[in-house]
Amino acid sequence: MENHVPHFAVIFTSKRRPQEGDGYPEMAAKMDALAREQPGFLGVDSVSSPVEGTISAITVSYWQDEESIRAWKRNLEHLLAQKRGKENWYLHYEVRVAKVERMYSGDEILE
Amino acid sequence: MENHVPHFAVIFTSKRRPQEGDGYPEMAAKMDALAREQPGFLGVDSVSSPVEGTISAITVSYWQDEESIRAWKRNLEHLLAQKRGKENWYLHYEVRVAKVERMYSGDEILE
Repeated sequence: MENHVPHFAVIFTSKRRPQEGDGYPEMAAKMDALAREQPGFLGVDSVSSPVEGTISAITVSYWQDEESIRAWKRNLEHLLAQKRGKENWYLHYEVRVAKVERMYSGDEILE
Repeated sequence: MENHVPHFAVIFTSKRRPQEGDGYPEMAAKMDALAREQPGFLGVDSVSSPVEGTISAITVSYWQDEESIRAWKRNLEHLLAQKRGKENWYLHYEVRVAKVERMYSGDEILE
């Protein structure tokens, strides 16, 4: 992804109790694909891990500007996913919208 | 943690190749404990997961202001950990310092 600053990050942390056939993995994949098609989308990092019967996850998506984030939040299919998330899937979640002011990165030399 | 905005987030995404006895888990635990003692520290979320022989991780720490973040980056024990991380542990990492401008959260009603 492009590393120019400033850009914007949506930090989504969540905890859910997974159930067979709850539709979550399908919806997550659908939203991931849909987000990538949105104007202003720059990239996404996502990690999830089982912890004592629940799944903890952090997803950080990166966007060119705040208007792109607002537009994605209002997307109709995304609104439906947010509703199902609140009602059915998440035990707890937090969303933070943040302006990335500095960025640095590193790679193993021999890679 | 306190949810007041604005606050600041350090988004640390990484990929590493784990090896027995490489000292990583001990250092990670030590840095977690040390970070919590720093002035301006508000909280931390961290998730890691094995992916094809490597471990992907996202750690987001939250801070009261940018000066707290700069002080933590310059902490001597933390500098040593950063050096070992670059030289020995990480295949790739990215660090973003971001100003959290909006935040919302949700809990399951019956929890």
